[in-house]
Amino acid sequence: MSDTKRVYRFGSDANGVDVTEGASSMKYMLGGKGANLAEMCRIGLPVPGGYTITCQTCMEYADAGNVWPAGALDEIEAATRDLEERMGKRLGDARDPLLVSVRSGAPFSMPGMMDTVLNLGLNDASAQGLIAQTGDPHFVWDSYRRFIQMFSDVVMGVDAELFENALTDKRLIAGVRTDAELSADDLHELVEEFKGIFRANVSAAEHPELIVDGAIAFPQDPAVQLKLAIEAVFGSWMNERACIYRKANDIPDDLGTAVNVQAMAYGNKGESSATGVAFTRNPANGARERYGDFLVNAQGEDVVAGIRNTEPIQKMGEYPALAQAAADLERIFQILEGHFHDMCDIEFTIEQGKLWMLQTRVGKRTAQAALRIAIDMVEEGLIDRAEAVRRIDPAQLDQLLHPQFDASADFEVLARGLNASPGAAVGEVVFSSDDAVAAVAEGRKVILVRWETNPDDLKGMVAAEGILTSHGGKTSHAAVIARGMGAPCVCGAEAIQIDAAAKEARVAGTDIVLREGDVISIDGTEGIVVAGAVPLVSVELTGDLETILSWADEIRLRPGNTHPYHVRVNADNPEDAERALGFGAEAIGLCRTEHMFLGERKNIIQTFILSDDPAVREQALSDLLAVQTGDFLKMFRTMDGRDVVVRLIDPPLHEFLDAPRELEVDIARREAAGAPEAELAPLRARLRRIDGMAEMNPMLGLRGVRLSFVFPELPLMQVRAVASAAATLIRDEGLDPRPEVMVPLVALATEQVQMRAVCEQVIAEVAAEFGVALDIPVGTMLELPRACLTADEIARSADFLCFGTNDLTQTTFGFSRDDAESKFMPVYLHRKLVEKNPFETIDKAVLELVRMAVEKARSVKPAMHCGVCGEHGGDPASIRGLFNTAGVDYVSCSPYRVPIARLAAAQAKLAEPVR
Amino acid sequence: MSDTKRVYRFGSDANGVDVTEGASSMKYMLGGKGANLAEMCRIGLPVPGGYTITCQTCMEYADAGNVWPAGALDEIEAATRDLEERMGKRLGDARDPLLVSVRSGAPFSMPGMMDTVLNLGLNDASAQGLIAQTGDPHFVWDSYRRFIQMFSDVVMGVDAELFENALTDKRLIAGVRTDAELSADDLHELVEEFKGIFRANVSAAEHPELIVDGAIAFPQDPAVQLKLAIEAVFGSWMNERACIYRKANDIPDDLGTAVNVQAMAYGNKGESSATGVAFTRNPANGARERYGDFLVNAQGEDVVAGIRNTEPIQKMGEYPALAQAAADLERIFQILEGHFHDMCDIEFTIEQGKLWMLQTRVGKRTAQAALRIAIDMVEEGLIDRAEAVRRIDPAQLDQLLHPQFDASADFEVLARGLNASPGAAVGEVVFSSDDAVAAVAEGRKVILVRWETNPDDLKGMVAAEGILTSHGGKTSHAAVIARGMGAPCVCGAEAIQIDAAAKEARVAGTDIVLREGDVISIDGTEGIVVAGAVPLVSVELTGDLETILSWADEIRLRPGNTHPYHVRVNADNPEDAERALGFGAEAIGLCRTEHMFLGERKNIIQTFILSDDPAVREQALSDLLAVQTGDFLKMFRTMDGRDVVVRLIDPPLHEFLDAPRELEVDIARREAAGAPEAELAPLRARLRRIDGMAEMNPMLGLRGVRLSFVFPELPLMQVRAVASAAATLIRDEGLDPRPEVMVPLVALATEQVQMRAVCEQVIAEVAAEFGVALDIPVGTMLELPRACLTADEIARSADFLCFGTNDLTQTTFGFSRDDAESKFMPVYLHRKLVEKNPFETIDKAVLELVRMAVEKARSVKPAMHCGVCGEHGGDPASIRGLFNTAGVDYVSCSPYRVPIARLAAAQAKLAEPVR
Repeated sequence: MSDTKRVYRFGSDANGVDVTEGASSMKYMLGGKGANLAEMCRIGLPVPGGYTITCQTCMEYADAGNVWPAGALDEIEAATRDLEERMGKRLGDARDPLLVSVRSGAPFSMPGMMDTVLNLGLNDASAQGLIAQTGDPHFVWDSYRRFIQMFSDVVMGVDAELFENALTDKRLIAGVRTDAELSADDLHELVEEFKGIFRANVSAAEHPELIVDGAIAFPQDPAVQLKLAIEAVFGSWMNERACIYRKANDIPDDLGTAVNVQAMAYGNKGESSATGVAFTRNPANGARERYGDFLVNAQGEDVVAGIRNTEPIQKMGEYPALAQAAADLERIFQILEGHFHDMCDIEFTIEQGKLWMLQTRVGKRTAQAALRIAIDMVEEGLIDRAEAVRRIDPAQLDQLLHPQFDASADFEVLARGLNASPGAAVGEVVFSSDDAVAAVAEGRKVILVRWETNPDDLKGMVAAEGILTSHGGKTSHAAVIARGMGAPCVCGAEAIQIDAAAKEARVAGTDIVLREGDVISIDGTEGIVVAGAVPLVSVELTGDLETILSWADEIRLRPGNTHPYHVRVNADNPEDAERALGFGAEAIGLCRTEHMFLGERKNIIQTFILSDDPAVREQALSDLLAVQTGDFLKMFRTMDGRDVVVRLIDPPLHEFLDAPRELEVDIARREAAGAPEAELAPLRARLRRIDGMAEMNPMLGLRGVRLSFVFPELPLMQVRAVASAAATLIRDEGLDPRPEVMVPLVALATEQVQMRAVCEQVIAEVAAEFGVALDIPVGTMLELPRACLTADEIARSADFLCFGTNDLTQTTFGFSRDDAESKFMPVYLHRKLVEKNPFETIDKAVLELVRMAVEKARSVKPAMHCGVCGEHGGDPASIRGLFNTAGVDYVSCSPYRVPIARLAAAQAKLAEPVR
Repeated sequence: MSDTKRVYRFGSDANGVDVTEGASSMKYMLGGKGANLAEMCRIGLPVPGGYTITCQTCMEYADAGNVWPAGALDEIEAATRDLEERMGKRLGDARDPLLVSVRSGAPFSMPGMMDTVLNLGLNDASAQGLIAQTGDPHFVWDSYRRFIQMFSDVVMGVDAELFENALTDKRLIAGVRTDAELSADDLHELVEEFKGIFRANVSAAEHPELIVDGAIAFPQDPAVQLKLAIEAVFGSWMNERACIYRKANDIPDDLGTAVNVQAMAYGNKGESSATGVAFTRNPANGARERYGDFLVNAQGEDVVAGIRNTEPIQKMGEYPALAQAAADLERIFQILEGHFHDMCDIEFTIEQGKLWMLQTRVGKRTAQAALRIAIDMVEEGLIDRAEAVRRIDPAQLDQLLHPQFDASADFEVLARGLNASPGAAVGEVVFSSDDAVAAVAEGRKVILVRWETNPDDLKGMVAAEGILTSHGGKTSHAAVIARGMGAPCVCGAEAIQIDAAAKEARVAGTDIVLREGDVISIDGTEGIVVAGAVPLVSVELTGDLETILSWADEIRLRPGNTHPYHVRVNADNPEDAERALGFGAEAIGLCRTEHMFLGERKNIIQTFILSDDPAVREQALSDLLAVQTGDFLKMFRTMDGRDVVVRLIDPPLHEFLDAPRELEVDIARREAAGAPEAELAPLRARLRRIDGMAEMNPMLGLRGVRLSFVFPELPLMQVRAVASAAATLIRDEGLDPRPEVMVPLVALATEQVQMRAVCEQVIAEVAAEFGVALDIPVGTMLELPRACLTADEIARSADFLCFGTNDLTQTTFGFSRDDAESKFMPVYLHRKLVEKNPFETIDKAVLELVRMAVEKARSVKPAMHCGVCGEHGGDPASIRGLFNTAGVDYVSCSPYRVPIARLAAAQAKLAEPVR
């Protein structure tokens, strides 16, 4: 037997003395549930006794190919004996049996993802014992049939529908509407029927240990039940839905789950019994009110599964048999918030009037609630501002920045449901997760419409724009998951009567039938469903978000920081610039000038590229100069007094041209149709010209600064446009334009040297022409490994550096983003070749190149201003690395990510290693 | 005046005391010519007095925009005064004038590339003085007309043909055949006519300093002549042909040229005068014999230009008036070899029986001669083996490895010429350099056929397979340049009577007319021209090359070296492997298995890729397994006992498919022609399938190890083929096959971990199946920046590492080689954005990534075997960096580069920094 302690007790001994061995700090060992069960015991809350098997045991078991580590089973058996002693009951006892629950509990909450078995310890003998002890055969047979059903499903993999069908048949025969109305005899009969289903559906070959008298039988030995249940919980760590959930939530795969074996408390022992889940504050909007649901005479799974519609927790005091428990619960809410200094989420059971706590954890919440709670707790003195900023998950803010229904839009509400996860969405109706995934793969946007969701729906929920269910409360699976993902969700819209097989839904009280492909809109902030597409609008930063972001700004911009934590925006037009200022962007970190060539201007650039006539080319260039100067005038006016980093044209010129393949097919068709040569010749000439510009690998071809050496007129024109716009604003409007010119895709210091000379000459010419002083810095965009490796050389002729981490990721990995994400990135994520998509969260080797380059550049120019303007600039995990590891001065991201980046930058500052 | 000394004297003072200030070690300051003129003075050889203006002065002058540095002109004037004093004559003296030559002289020899002016100092007065002094008006007027002609051409840019035409007219009028037969009066008249040409063709606006009495006149002031001549020489450093030559020969552009101003010695003072060039040994084959040409009564330019056919140097002793000079020359040959320990190349002039040395340098030679001379000098005790190895230019060896005429081929010699540069070539006849460049751009191979070549032909010579001239000797421009380039060249094939304007050549003594586009063959080793294509064969390593390479191997493989300097070969088939063994390859460093899918096997892989039917795919895979196993059997048998690194399939699968564009055009044509749907449907299905595999940037797409995760069957099949072939040879033939499996395009350690596990499992299965032990290492090909940056992690599951520096260069620069070389690399080289094409010679940042990766890998596994198998593995400059800076153990290159790599590796060892 090894020295590793694998089993930790919690709860009291037979004398009521607390013998808890764990604590809330031990969640990587005991899982979140186990650690907090222990913590609740330590602070004197009522918790049924039990023990926790460590997460490490799960991983050892899994790594060995589902083989138990030496000694582990002995330790569990000893803990079971100890629990029996503490509870004064024995598993399987024919007089007064101990029953236990076996629950998973990973270090991070994974709601509904892993397995649980309740009522374990029941067998034919102990059922009789329990009846003798409780005098309540209805309760006992109900518990036993639940146990067989759950054990068969969860542990043995028998199809759960078989049991549901039998139950339905029984209700029909008995002529009752609900399970609770079935008689004790009905339930006893069901137990026997369920055992039959078990015998018929468990393979003797796979389970020789369950053969009795030559045939499979439901196991009567509680020790066998317990071992199989624990193994099933361990195994559920690697089930598909758990793996998907972990990937979606960035939870490492090597943590494992703990197993909590705990004496059962019964919420299904009649009208003085109940079960429920609750939050100490409103997790949807953060209001200072208790929030949750309970069900009288039920077991916990009934609440979470969303199958029965629940009562709000506030009403519990109105049930006389539960009044004491309701008062106890209120006291416990206060104790928990005082202890954890945070909003808590609990599960509880009331067994014949006595309240038992089954779980607590820091509660999940919407972004809106997270902001409200953090601000309130600062006011209440529970936490300080830094802690408030630290507590908001920047990724979650995204949901606040999601579009909402346009307030001025005219629409009729088709149905109402619960406002389960905020934000609005528009999409085509689909009725299954597979359909959702397939439609999204075709580029369509969908709303997933389900009676309820279950863990197998996860992939469909990830793919959909929003989720609509006709059943389930705000703590149902759909609601919890959608809030976690930041996806809009309307729950329990009971008017939506779904026939998933027919792929349609009738809307009660109307003639309307929604069919697959019909467009609907949902508003998860209000709980509204609308037929057709409602116009969406983006939100302003106001209220709580503004408060938290102002605190974040205080932190990240505090004088005396080791370096600045600035946030800029990538914006290519005045509208984006305006919006980004509203979101708190400090400057424009990237203005992609080629985006100014789109729309009707595409013709001009095409003329420039394709014409052989110098006069025509010159005219095109002059037209481009005029429109770009106009664009820059607006941009610089909007950003008066703030930096605007203008990147010179970057994409290969053939991106502005027709696809040669289509043109050639067109020519072939015209030829075959007998078109005259006069019609064909110019098309052929155009095709030759376009073909002449084609490239094998455009990403690595004639683009970026390279264009400036092959088509020097283009960057000259652009720099002239920038300088002229700035000069005009200075001379004519007395403004303070601050453009900076950035040279893209530099690989060689010589490129920067030559381009800088060219830029400076143009700027000097324009300054002389307008008679104003122009100080326009010329910097380098570092987006190639070679540039990073020689950043010291490049820095000598660059006024600033900005890392384009999208391209840098492409070249460092040798991954073309377009090709990788369509051809092999899904396989790479699935096979764990990469932990995360490196185009979303910056890879460590790419980060190391950035760090190295910043260090090299500052070895030459210690005050060199360095930033990042790839998409990673809006990704919280990347932002921390970029500021704290690579030491950049700013990140620049898309307008909607600016608030996220401000918060993430402040958190990076708070997490900055002490120097 | 600055402290920089800009002018260095050489030669004696008026008392015969040597006052030389320079030495041969100062070539970067004095140029090669100036430094060696000084050295010859120091060792007592007869050198006309003079002075050298430094290369640095040239660069200062050029960098300032052709403005003289302060004080330089004063220093030159002082040196001129000093030279006049030393020679006892004055420039322009009307009684006994000093005449000087003004010659360029860069640190590296650039034959014929830059400018020279002879006879400077002549004017109307000094011409009379010289006649008075020499009593030889013919000589004086000839010298004066030469001076005007040369000065006008070289310094003033007047078209040289104008003077040649006047000269021809004069010969016709005089009824003589050669210039030498013109009378003194004829020449005097020519002087006046030439002055007229000068007046008519020099722009007064550009040269106000030359206006006399309101009109341009040939300058009479020797100081003006001298200043303009020196400026012209400086300017010639940047002329186009010099720039091209430097690029072709890897000579930096910032060295500048020195200018040598030297008292004239006259080879055109009658029958006791002569001029010539010679080598101390035969530069074509290295034989221990004097080698060279001379012309009686001529100036040096006549010899080098190849215009007059020369006499071999051996015959000089037969001319009584030159006998003493011939004996002196022989003595000087011995002194020079004894002093320089190398074969020397000299220019000399005999003035009325007195020998003057005008230049010496280490002589250029063919690769064959270089080997012979190095070996002979070791035997003679002049140098040791290491020095012999050090002296061979590995790049030059290429010419020895060029194809030769197949000895068994039947052909008739069309014409004979001089064997000016070894190797044989076949190509279409072209008569101009422009035509050569244009034809090669169209993918044709050409032989450049010229009456003679001049420096403007350089680009045509670079483009052509070989060069054929009808005039000129072995030291003519064509011969020297071709030898330097390693291009086959036949010179002075006088039977070829060229009419370049008509683009044809008659062959004297035959009816044959060669027209543009006709195919001919030339053998530069033998000096043979053949009509039509002669089959070419490659050479074996024998004789001198074998000797030098064996010495190189002694050095690079010497026990006790800090690390090995191994040379492997990239070979994809048994024939290449066999050839490479003959060339001394130690192992196969890269076997590209996809090359085994070409030819008729392409159908099989297409079937595998395009079929939806699992059975069909499986059959295709099994067919591929059979053919690959067969290939490997042959390879491993050939390489018995030697490592064979087999790289798993690398290219994207769509490379094996039809181009979708052609297919779509084909479909469109068929449709338009009314093809039935039954015909079109399968084509459309095929197009969809092919389109489904298309990628935006295939270089960064689904290829390399990525294929192994998306199409796991492919690498499994390949590893099985490798293992089965090895197992068969062990079991059935008792051989010692040593395959190694290399995983391509790894970016992530996880890729290597997973692939290694897969490979090892297959190898174990095959070993069990055959009942033999198989030890097949699995290594990684590092060709992405990320792999280099994380080489320590990758090294943990790699048995060896090999750098693919082609792809590494592409991703480090973000340059697609195909696109870069066709779209912008020429501009980059021209604009000096890069010094060298990084795909030919490894870039310093790429080298740094390799160095870093080797260091990281060895930090984990100190004995990690590291190699390089990109094209840089065959490039001498890269080889030194790879061994000495990056510390790799081997390079692997194409078969024909193996001898070059062996030599370069030995030189790297010799140049290894002392630790």
